[in-house]
Formats: sequence, structure tokens, C-alpha cells
Amino acid sequence: MAGNTFGNLFKVTTFGESHGVAIGGIIDGCPAGVMLDLEAIQAELDRRKPGQSAIVTQRKEPDMVEFYSGIFENVTTGTPIGFVIKNANQKSRDYSHIKDSFRPSHADYTYNQKYGVRDYRGGGRSSARETASRVVAGAIAKQVLSDITFNSYVSAVGTIKLDRPHTELDFSLIESNIVRCPDTEKATEMETYIKQIRKEGDTVGGVVSCVISGVPVGLGEPVFDKLHAELGKAMLSINAVKGFEYGSGFNGAALKGSQHNDLFNSDGTTKTNLSGGIQGGISNGMDIYFNVAFKPVATIMQDQETIDKDGNIVTMQGKGRHDPCVVPRAVPIVDAMAALVLVDYWLMNRTIKK
Amino acid sequence: MAGNTFGNLFKVTTFGESHGVAIGGIIDGCPAGVMLDLEAIQAELDRRKPGQSAIVTQRKEPDMVEFYSGIFENVTTGTPIGFVIKNANQKSRDYSHIKDSFRPSHADYTYNQKYGVRDYRGGGRSSARETASRVVAGAIAKQVLSDITFNSYVSAVGTIKLDRPHTELDFSLIESNIVRCPDTEKATEMETYIKQIRKEGDTVGGVVSCVISGVPVGLGEPVFDKLHAELGKAMLSINAVKGFEYGSGFNGAALKGSQHNDLFNSDGTTKTNLSGGIQGGISNGMDIYFNVAFKPVATIMQDQETIDKDGNIVTMQGKGRHDPCVVPRAVPIVDAMAALVLVDYWLMNRTIKK
Amino acid sequence: MAGNTFGNLFKVTTFGESHGVAIGGIIDGCPAGVMLDLEAIQAELDRRKPGQSAIVTQRKEPDMVEFYSGIFENVTTGTPIGFVIKNANQKSRDYSHIKDSFRPSHADYTYNQKYGVRDYRGGGRSSARETASRVVAGAIAKQVLSDITFNSYVSAVGTIKLDRPHTELDFSLIESNIVRCPDTEKATEMETYIKQIRKEGDTVGGVVSCVISGVPVGLGEPVFDKLHAELGKAMLSINAVKGFEYGSGFNGAALKGSQHNDLFNSDGTTKTNLSGGIQGGISNGMDIYFNVAFKPVATIMQDQETIDKDGNIVTMQGKGRHDPCVVPRAVPIVDAMAALVLVDYWLMNRTIKK
Amino acid sequence: MAGNTFGNLFKVTTFGESHGVAIGGIIDGCPAGVMLDLEAIQAELDRRKPGQSAIVTQRKEPDMVEFYSGIFENVTTGTPIGFVIKNANQKSRDYSHIKDSFRPSHADYTYNQKYGVRDYRGGGRSSARETASRVVAGAIAKQVLSDITFNSYVSAVGTIKLDRPHTELDFSLIESNIVRCPDTEKATEMETYIKQIRKEGDTVGGVVSCVISGVPVGLGEPVFDKLHAELGKAMLSINAVKGFEYGSGFNGAALKGSQHNDLFNSDGTTKTNLSGGIQGGISNGMDIYFNVAFKPVATIMQDQETIDKDGNIVTMQGKGRHDPCVVPRAVPIVDAMAALVLVDYWLMNRTIKK
Repeated sequence: MAGNTFGNLFKVTTFGESHGVAIGGIIDGCPAGVMLDLEAIQAELDRRKPGQSAIVTQRKEPDMVEFYSGIFENVTTGTPIGFVIKNANQKSRDYSHIKDSFRPSHADYTYNQKYGVRDYRGGGRSSARETASRVVAGAIAKQVLSDITFNSYVSAVGTIKLDRPHTELDFSLIESNIVRCPDTEKATEMETYIKQIRKEGDTVGGVVSCVISGVPVGLGEPVFDKLHAELGKAMLSINAVKGFEYGSGFNGAALKGSQHNDLFNSDGTTKTNLSGGIQGGISNGMDIYFNVAFKPVATIMQDQETIDKDGNIVTMQGKGRHDPCVVPRAVPIVDAMAALVLVDYWLMNRTIKK
Repeated sequence: MAGNTFGNLFKVTTFGESHGVAIGGIIDGCPAGVMLDLEAIQAELDRRKPGQSAIVTQRKEPDMVEFYSGIFENVTTGTPIGFVIKNANQKSRDYSHIKDSFRPSHADYTYNQKYGVRDYRGGGRSSARETASRVVAGAIAKQVLSDITFNSYVSAVGTIKLDRPHTELDFSLIESNIVRCPDTEKATEMETYIKQIRKEGDTVGGVVSCVISGVPVGLGEPVFDKLHAELGKAMLSINAVKGFEYGSGFNGAALKGSQHNDLFNSDGTTKTNLSGGIQGGISNGMDIYFNVAFKPVATIMQDQETIDKDGNIVTMQGKGRHDPCVVPRAVPIVDAMAALVLVDYWLMNRTIKK
Repeated sequence: MAGNTFGNLFKVTTFGESHGVAIGGIIDGCPAGVMLDLEAIQAELDRRKPGQSAIVTQRKEPDMVEFYSGIFENVTTGTPIGFVIKNANQKSRDYSHIKDSFRPSHADYTYNQKYGVRDYRGGGRSSARETASRVVAGAIAKQVLSDITFNSYVSAVGTIKLDRPHTELDFSLIESNIVRCPDTEKATEMETYIKQIRKEGDTVGGVVSCVISGVPVGLGEPVFDKLHAELGKAMLSINAVKGFEYGSGFNGAALKGSQHNDLFNSDGTTKTNLSGGIQGGISNGMDIYFNVAFKPVATIMQDQETIDKDGNIVTMQGKGRHDPCVVPRAVPIVDAMAALVLVDYWLMNRTIKK
Repeated sequence: MAGNTFGNLFKVTTFGESHGVAIGGIIDGCPAGVMLDLEAIQAELDRRKPGQSAIVTQRKEPDMVEFYSGIFENVTTGTPIGFVIKNANQKSRDYSHIKDSFRPSHADYTYNQKYGVRDYRGGGRSSARETASRVVAGAIAKQVLSDITFNSYVSAVGTIKLDRPHTELDFSLIESNIVRCPDTEKATEMETYIKQIRKEGDTVGGVVSCVISGVPVGLGEPVFDKLHAELGKAMLSINAVKGFEYGSGFNGAALKGSQHNDLFNSDGTTKTNLSGGIQGGISNGMDIYFNVAFKPVATIMQDQETIDKDGNIVTMQGKGRHDPCVVPRAVPIVDAMAALVLVDYWLMNRTIKK
């Protein structure tokens, strides 16, 4: 209810503020008997961590996950998996510039109004630091779903767009560059642009796309909990996301039915896939694919006018170490959330037939 | 879990197939003491019902809602509100053309694979007929939220787009035309186009936009249940929806932070509203606005090749009475789902402060 | 949240007041492909209905269940099962004697204080009439759990107790008498006593016991959702219930560990069964058995002093047709709630291993 | 679903095995703005901890709680409260005697059958060690509910019973003796008995009673989530509990309606309180009181025959340090669970009126 839990059967609850002692979470409902590759989990965290390349924030946090329960001799036991990631940067700093003021297009104002109190040391709970816990949970979900593959990648940075359809891409190139775009040429272009934006003290938005392959037919629940509805919610819950579309998406709204319908092959696959692998909210076995739009990071290295708690206009100076563009680090988060959605429906699907 | 419930504190569960005895639902958690305008509820249903105009399906169903509980002397009692809408068209017809075949881009195939059995009389549970129950629940939610207004309207039909920002529109024009587009000229253009599409035996997609005004600051729960994430899920759960974006949306991904940030006025409002009324998942008091993309209706009046249960290629003839374009009837559904999201957070917000 | 839903995977939501148009409910999550015996469902309802024998209330209500969805050609389809039981006695009567007064040990006062409004025609939502919907849902759950048998029976009426352990009883005798006690001699004694109590214009409490056999090992979730905890909640949610104990129960609290421990046979069964078929909240394959204490019905045919809404002392006359003892009609309700608990864990158990 | 979460609006999820790195939990939904007395929380933990007196297990564990989030400058912020209690005794020991064998009347067998794997180092997840996390959460709940008092106490040890009604007790005596019985004479008798039982290498059961005062009228949700149903579930979820009764309880089943009804005073209070402070599942403002039966601890210091994984009969020697009687340490756990139930309904109650 209070918003810190995701999933039903594979249920993840996270805790932690950006500048508290630690962040972490509990996974309840992970099936027993899964042999875990703990290094693969840490590797996913490393894809998200600050300081990993020249185009992300230069803050340094090791982001090492420690497991406290639910795993015995590397195998899941069916009991809740408690995990913790200590915060490296929790020492006292000077927060006086944001303590009493609200940063524009951040959650400072809304948290303050909603709760009456606020942990003013950085973004607190609203910081994207929380997503590290999601990456841990998602990495475990992926290992449960060993036959399903998740390929997220950057498909746009500002106005630079990867216009090739996902079926033409080589996903093995995603990790070949620091932008995480599986098109070497576009990746270079995007990297150059992000560096320029950072020099300007500015930030820029982008798009992460995701392709999920190997999904069995039948995942998803009808009506309110359609598979794509939950995927949409999962993606929109990631910090800075402004939009979600799957299959034909917004372009599909401009088409005619005779253009849009996916005709069947005799094996139940379809000749085209404008449906995006989902019909009536249930997977049909084709690739699921979708786009996620991220706004530019709100913290910029430029002075901005804003207000303090008393409504006085104050000038907020841009300082600190922030991401000029969030999408390269968002790639493992999109992967993780997609895996969390899929694992829940995969477990649910075991209950539906006599 | 099985997907037929929406909401937590104002919880709606629906039942019913398109050709069964009846559809209906239960609302659990509606506050006590709300004097209901029952005619206003029926009026919302009438905005959704078949046969209402020349550009929607010509099927006739009266869609009268009957309340069985939870309301006493027109006032809600705090007990569950059970309601039923009888199906007019449940008589035996000839379904032989779809009994054993799967209609392209419908849910026939996925339901069949998921459940092993299927009510083959029309769309069954996957039919958009289910949304009538949502409209009833949403209409009650609106009456609970008497200070909040919901204005949904058609902003695109195929390639015809209403390009004016919502701040320049006169919402009193929405019901002035059968398309439900608050721009008389565009509405006429859209209406003409839909009629032409119908003549072709084809269908076309479109976009419904929604503006929610009068939202108090503080609605929405952080992290996984952000206000816009739940709005996105709600909209994506509507039949035929392919995408959702709020505030700056997909366009925002192309912008720089210096362009995108909404600067504060001294009263906490913002000078611009690219955020779309939500910061960090919590309402900031500005208008919430979003777009919802609908694909073209899959049932077209043209012959299509498809497969039967045994994988044989068969020809499916287009027949029956279907919507050439779903968006005019989707307007009250978008309104309803938006109200269901808001009412839940509005109730939740009462619990968060000591 | 608002209390009208039971279960998670096999989720039952009920609606309806005692004197409204109808009561009913929705079952969401019933597995697809279950061939239902609809007469068996009605037969369970008949075991609960008023007027069935000389020792229950003489009100007449046919209590016929109508199914509106989720069942096609007698087979469950995996979609929600909506059902309705019309109220026979909803015509206008004279409720003036209870409209403004609170009946002692009824829920009139607490409902009024909680909600501010109250449907004063009889018990409204707090009436045990609601349990008819539970019986419908439980009867379906039993058919899903075809290998598990539920045997509830009356084990005490007032101070008359059936002191034989359940292992010595012949459950085929339960329906051989109108008390539903599987001991002919005790049943006669109880019947005589209930008739005498009715003559006195009084009521009396009793105990229903239940034995569940054929439960597979492994049902139940550890920690908060232990199998017996959920059974306890289910039973305590039935109107008039004051206590629940399973296995050794309250007597077990007086024993020593050396007396209480159940030693294993080599096949995993136990030589004794003080555990009541559950260890650590998880079924061990032995019979599950428990007792449920019911208080005497609060409505008596004697004058009682009480208060009206303004706090004035008024005399409430005993009138109407009520049960002198609730336990004979409670037997199918205990069965139903037990089945609802078991079916949920049975479905959940499918998800716990890789 | 998987059983490690309690509550809806004040939602507690716990993790941890008895011999893992740590146990702990997350509280989601605690209202913001509550000034916490952290020492009072630790004091509750100390009431539960091992080694505190001569009649409990002599294991030593400091059980210090550390808070990682959700509290800023001693005030709750509305974000999830993550907390951890490190395990002192997690070092490698010799578990060979229980690794492959199932202790009688423990959860070894059922966990093994359910999950296929088992953390054999002690009770693992089924250990009552988990209840330390509940005590932390309950202690916070109590501080939220500052106007409600919870008085749990030992009312029976084996056959020694405190027969005085709760209205005659002086709760300030609860902590005056190590049994936690508010009757000095009975407490001495119980203490002597427990010491004798320990000498015999045996264990004994008991009863904890609880009185909740200062409850506002209107807490509890009707039908399935009645206040006493949830209290019952909460208590039955505590390790070793076999029964729950409230108000008149099992004795009430032997009474007549004319004896059992609680007549009103003109202020809405009742002259008697056989109802136990709850009518129709909703609090009526009178004291809520109930009894909880605990079986004797299954681990005894005597040799017992049991089976190993292959079904071979083996002799299990009694060793280790265990509680001869669990009820003195169960008192703060009953308090905690009662507070967790109440706080959830207290928050829910804020949502029910327009």
C-alpha cells in the first residue's frame, strides 16, 4: 500500500535512503532449490553503479550486496532473501543549500508536503539509489527464469535515435560500449553528445528499449493485470520515466486494422509482431518489446531560481556529481524490472489449470 | 492475483463475459456517507454504450446498471457495493465461424493456450464489454472525489491529430460532437475519416488524452506505486491500449534538463508543467495530463487468413457489428480508470501522517 | 482491506445485506478446467438455509444460487465466477423497533459508530446471511480439492458435549440427524435441549468441530501465514465465533513436552497427532482437526433493556423468527471456510519449488 | 503470499534464519512524524531475549536492533523502516545430530517436504528467533498508538492457572517477577514448577492473556477481517500457539443468550463485557481481552526416537540450551502482535467516512 513492494508471488520490498546507513530489501516467494550465481548478481549491480565510466556520475560507491538470509550453500531455501547494500557516502556533508529549499523538478517539494518531514540529505527515498535494490532482486528473478532472456539497451539519447528495429540488432554489442547501444556508430555519436552536454553543465533525456525472448505462451492475467499493464507500471516506477509503449506503441494508433493485425502461422506464431508478443494481456510466445522514455536528470550544473520552505525565491547553485544522462545506467534497471514482472506471472501461471 | 481486481482501499473486482448472463462487480472500500447521484452513474454508462452514434458499433445494449447492496436511501453505507449489468445479447447465435478458429490480434489464441478452455461466444472475458463495469465504479469514484475533475477527450484518430496543448482547449466542447474531440473542426475531420474507414470495412486507431484538475498536493506513493505508474497501469489495462505517456512524455526524452525543469512560483505551483503534475510519483497540485494510444480494433469487415485449433489455415470472414474506431467510446473508460486510481491514493493519503 | 475478501489465489469477495436486493460474490482465481457439480453446490446451500428443520429459524428463504460468469458448459474457464442469491424477504416491513435502537450484543452500535450510517433493516451486512455466499464459494473449493475431505459436525450444545475423540466417530452419521452430531444418542439429547431453550425464548451456544483428511504434506506458509493461523482467522470470521483451537488446543497448554511430542513412524506419519496435522504452520499429512466455539445467538424472545441513538434507555421486545442455537446451520459454513483456506494454500504450493 | 508479511497499511515483512547472518525486517506504511523512543523499542526486545532470567534458555544473544532507514533525527519519515538484528550464534557448530534427522513435533519434516531443501542449522526460518523482528515492529506500532495500552501476562503454566478475571489484576505487577504473572503468589508457584520441569529435562505449556485498553470505537473491518479474526490469526502465527479465544471464549459456548448478552449503559458502554470489546468484528470501546494457548516446547532434554531422511529409526539425544517453558518470553510477542493488528485497523479507520 505504502508503495515499497513490487510483485505478488515473487514479492520484493525495498528500504533505504540515499544517505542513510544502508539500502536493501527482502524478496519473499523466491522458489526453493534455485542454485544462485552470486557473482552474476553483483555483475548486474556493477552495470548500474556510479563511477563506472566517463559518461556517468563520478561518485564512487562500491555497491556490494550482502545476503543475510534465504540462501543456504548457494541454493535458495524458499524463505525470504534479506539483503543489504551499505551506503558509502553517508558521512556528514554540507546539505545546507538544499535543506530548506526545493530543487526544481525533484521530489523535495512533494515529499515535504506529503509527509511533513523530509530527510533532506540528497534525494533520500526519492533518489534513484533505491534502484540498486531492484537490480539485486531482478538479477535473482532472471536466474529463476533461466529460459527467458532480457535485452535492454539505449535506443535514444536526446534527439539521436537508433532507428533500426530490434530484429536487426546484435545484442552482444550492448556491453561493447559505455552508452549500452548495440549499434557502434550510434553509440559513438551518443557518447560524444553526452560529453558535450556535461560540459555545458546540462543533462539530456533518452530512451531505453527492451526485448524479452523465450517467453512461454500464457503469461499474464486478463483484465486489470494484463502483462503489458504491469510491465508499464514497472517501467514507469523507475525514476525519471515519462512514457511506455509496447509493440506498435504510439505509432500503432495511426494505423488501420488491416495493417496492424498479426496473421498466424500454422504453429501459432505470427507473421508480424505489431502486438509486441502480447494479445489480450497474455504472452503469445513472440518477442515482447517495448520502449521507455526517460526525462533529462533534473540536477543541472547551472544556477536555477527556486523557492525555500517559506516561499522565498532563492538561487540554487548547481554542484555535486551527477549523471549527465541517465539511460546508460538505466539499462540494467529496465532489465531488472522486466524480470520481476515476468517471474511473478511465471509463478502465477502454475496455478491456473486444474 | 488472477487479475480481476483494481485498487487497494477502493477496491473494484469485476466479473462477466460478453455473452454470459451478466457482467458486474463489487466495490469494496467506498467510504460511507456519500450521497450518490445514480443518474450520473447511468449517464457515464450511456457515454460508453454501443449504438449511441453513427460512428460506433450498431449493436444495441441498454446497459442498465442495477445496484444490489452497499447503498441505502441513496447513501453509501461503507459495505460493499454489488452491481450487475444484464447482457442483452446472450441468446444463442451462430458462433461456428469463431468456435474453433483464432481471430488475428484477438485474445482467442492466448486464452485458449493459457486456460485450456474458452468461452468462444465472442470475446468472452477478453471483450471490452467488461469495461462497462469499470465505468460504473469510476463514476462512483468521481462522486467521492467531488473536488477533482476529469476531462478525457479524443486527441487523435489515425493520422489526424489535435495538436493544441490541453491548456488551450475548452473541455465543455467534448460532448458537443460524437467523436468527443474538444475542437469542432478537428472533430468533423475525424468523424468523416471514421465513416470512410467503416466503408472500407476497416478500422483505425487513435489517442485519448486526459487532464485531471483540482488534485491536492501529496497523492501518490513513492517508489513502486508512483502515481503515474499506477495511472499507466490503469490505462494499459484498457483493451487495445499500446502506450502511455504523461507530462512531457516521449518528447521529454529529447530535451535538456535546462529546458525541462519546472521552476517554482513562490506558492509552490510551477511556471511550466512538463512534469505533468507529478514529481517523484506524488502529485504537486498542478494539472495531471497524459496520453493513451489505442491500436485499431482487430475485428475488420474483410476476409483474413487465420488458423484453427489444429493449426489448419482457414479464411475468416469479416462480419458482425463492430466499432470502426474505439476512441470515442474509450473516453469515459479513461475517465473512469483515472478516477479509480485517484480515489485509491486519496484514501491512502489519509493514513500517512501521525 | 475493507474486509470483504478472503483468500489470495482463490479469492472470494462477497457483497450484500440481509434485507437488500440480493447477496452474492465473485470468486477470482478458480483454476480452469474444473467440471462442476452444480447440484452439489446447491445441496451445501440447503444445509445452511433457514427453515430446514424444527430446531432452526422458521424463516423461509429458498436461497437459490445463480451463476453469471466463469462457468461455460459446466466447466470453469479460469475467469471470475460471479454469483447471486436473491433475497426473498426484502419487502418493506416494520423495522421501527430497531431503526433507532441498538440490540444488545449485536453489531448495530459498532456499525453505527464506525460508518455514521446504517442499513437498519435487520442485521444488514453484519447478518449471518452473508455466510450463504461463503458456502457457495466453499462448495466450489471442495470440488477443486477433490482428494481432500472435510467433515464438520456439532460437538457441543450448551453444556452437552460429545466427548469422544474424532478418530472414534462415524462421519456418515452427521447428516442422519438435524443437529448434525455424529453420535445418535448425544444428538437426541442436544435436539431436546435446543427445543427446550426455544420454548424459554432463549438461545444457547455450542461448538463445531472439523476434521480434514487427505491433506497432502506441505500446505501452509511459514511465519505469519501458518496454515492453522489462517484456519483460525477463517473460523473467527464466522458470525458468533468466540474461540478456535486445533490439535491439542487449550488442553495442550497443560501438558509436558514428553507427553505432547508426536513421534514419527518410518513413513513420516506420526504415532500420535496432538499436533493436529500441522507442524510449523505446514501440513504434515495427518488429519487436521480443530474446534470452533459459538456464542449463543444474541436475539432472544425476551424483553431486554437497551439504548437508542440518543442514549435513552428503551425496552426491546423479543420478536421475529430466529435460531435458538446456531451450530446445526454453522456446520456447512465451517466446512466452507476450511475448504477456502485449503484451496488457497494448495494453489500456492504449486509455486514454491523451482 | 509466501507468508512473511503481516498487515496491510502498517505492513511488516521479516527475514532471517536462526543461524544465518542476521534477522530483520521492513516496516512499510508507518505514519510520518512519529517521534520514536528508541530505548523503549530495545527494552521490548530485552523482554524477549534469551538468557534474561533463570527460567528461560541460557543462550546468550544481545539482540541489539539497528535501524537502517525510515527514521531521521528520531522521527519517522513515512518511508520504509529497515532494521537488522545480527545473530551472535551463527558460528559453525556441530549440527550433525539434526542435519539428516527430523526432530519430533518440530517443523524439520514439513519444511523438508515442502521446499526440498532445508537450512538444518537449528530451526532455521521456523525458529522462534524470528519473533524478535515482530517485537521491534510491535514496539513501534505501540508508539504510534500512544493512547492504547497493551497488557499481556502469563495466566497459566501447565496446570497452574491464574483464575482471577483480568479486571481484578494489577498489571504493574507483570514485570515484578520473571514469570510475568501479575499475581505474586501464583508467579512463585509457576516459577517453582518451571524449575522442576527443567530439572526433569522436560518442558511445559502455558497460557498468555492480553488486555487492550483505550481502544476507540470502530476499529475492525466487517465480514472476513473482523478485529478478533485478525487478532486470532496474529496470535496463532506465533510459534507453539494451539488456541485463541476472546471475550467469553470457549466458556461462552456453554451459556444462554440471556446470560451472555451485554446490556448497554446510556453512554454506549456495556454493563458486562462477555463480548470482549468487539461486536460484529468492530471494537466497541470496552477492553479487548483474549487468551492464547502455547504447547510445551518440543525440544526436551531426554532421548527420543525419531526418523532420518531415509526413514530409518534413530535416537535423538536431548542437548543444547532451550526454554523449559516459553510463556514468560512470549509475553512481549503477544503484546507486539496485538499492537500490529490494532495499528493496521487504526490506520484503516481513517479511510472509511466521506
